[in-house]
Amino acid sequence: MAEHAPPASPEHEEKLERLLGIAAEIFAEKGYHAASIRDLSKRAGVSLSGLYYYFHSKQELLLMIQERSLRKVMDELSRKLEGVDRPEEKLRTLVHNHVGFFAENMAAMRVITHEYDALEGECRARMRQLRREYSNLCQEILREVRRFTSAGDVAPLNVATSALFGMMNWIYAWYTPGSNVPVERLAEHLYRLFTGGFIGHPSTSSAGRKAG
Amino acid sequence: MAEHAPPASPEHEEKLERLLGIAAEIFAEKGYHAASIRDLSKRAGVSLSGLYYYFHSKQELLLMIQERSLRKVMDELSRKLEGVDRPEEKLRTLVHNHVGFFAENMAAMRVITHEYDALEGECRARMRQLRREYSNLCQEILREVRRFTSAGDVAPLNVATSALFGMMNWIYAWYTPGSNVPVERLAEHLYRLFTGGFIGHPSTSSAGRKAG
Repeated sequence: MAEHAPPASPEHEEKLERLLGIAAEIFAEKGYHAASIRDLSKRAGVSLSGLYYYFHSKQELLLMIQERSLRKVMDELSRKLEGVDRPEEKLRTLVHNHVGFFAENMAAMRVITHEYDALEGECRARMRQLRREYSNLCQEILREVRRFTSAGDVAPLNVATSALFGMMNWIYAWYTPGSNVPVERLAEHLYRLFTGGFIGHPSTSSAGRKAG
Repeated sequence: MAEHAPPASPEHEEKLERLLGIAAEIFAEKGYHAASIRDLSKRAGVSLSGLYYYFHSKQELLLMIQERSLRKVMDELSRKLEGVDRPEEKLRTLVHNHVGFFAENMAAMRVITHEYDALEGECRARMRQLRREYSNLCQEILREVRRFTSAGDVAPLNVATSALFGMMNWIYAWYTPGSNVPVERLAEHLYRLFTGGFIGHPSTSSAGRKAG
């Protein structure tokens, strides 16, 4: 067993994707520490030794789920950003891309947000690096938005970036795709809520000035 | 063993609070399912039968952590809202109260956000009810803010409420109290970011209008 994967064939890739999807569901339901490779074997209908053809350890499995999901989000974003010049449109693209992907991949999102701490050593370092890249990209877009608008200094860029990710990532806790609001509209609401605040509304420069 | 707590004395209450704090740390570190009452017994230096004087089951322990934390947040908010009339000031009070409490109680916050699904049956129903009360309170304040300002219809109230909770709750994932920004300032940034967007900036009515 534990024979390592050769250069991936389309069949290998397809089967791996299916396994990662099922594993993400199991980790999302039970939590990483309480879940076992045996659970995956049972639900996927693949023997334990068969699974080790795709990954060597539970840690590697966890890393693959997180890394591949985030890479997909980032690759898709790069593709969509081609030819987009206006900073606010870039930000809009980022929000729609992020919310759109994760509304379709709630289990993976939950694993990324809840089980990052469960990554150890080298696995954690790799994911940390990737998250940082994505966060930096977002921060760069926010910097541009601020530069090209009358945006005041409502919040430092790192706080604004984290606030935006909070808004977007929190959807796993309350949003049910298909019900409530359609995903596209949800993304647009979040984009507007965030951008309006980030660019700065004149009446937010001090607290509680208007009503009452 | 499993003798139930009589009307709580101050000593009982104090010891229970200490145990809940330690249990929150353990659940936050390992996740609910992977953690055991034995872990708590070891770290707290209290025998298993001693622990059952304070709660009957791991589920009851999980509920107590979540319910007591959220009740504290809500009670403190009610107290602070007394005599506050201006809707934006109410919202500001809510944000400062929430962020302030959870920045000081990161483990409890993590348990509330990550381990809500781990609650079962009656425990889940009780916590669901309490979360709904808190969310409704927040939504009522947002409704007032909208009514008393020139707020446009940037987002439906339930989406806006969830976006605000996302911004606030996500701090457990990136914020280190003491480092970065002081808590008070962080809360003010989040308040302004959210309120500016919620009340609606004139230039956010359509996307990407300004720069480029």
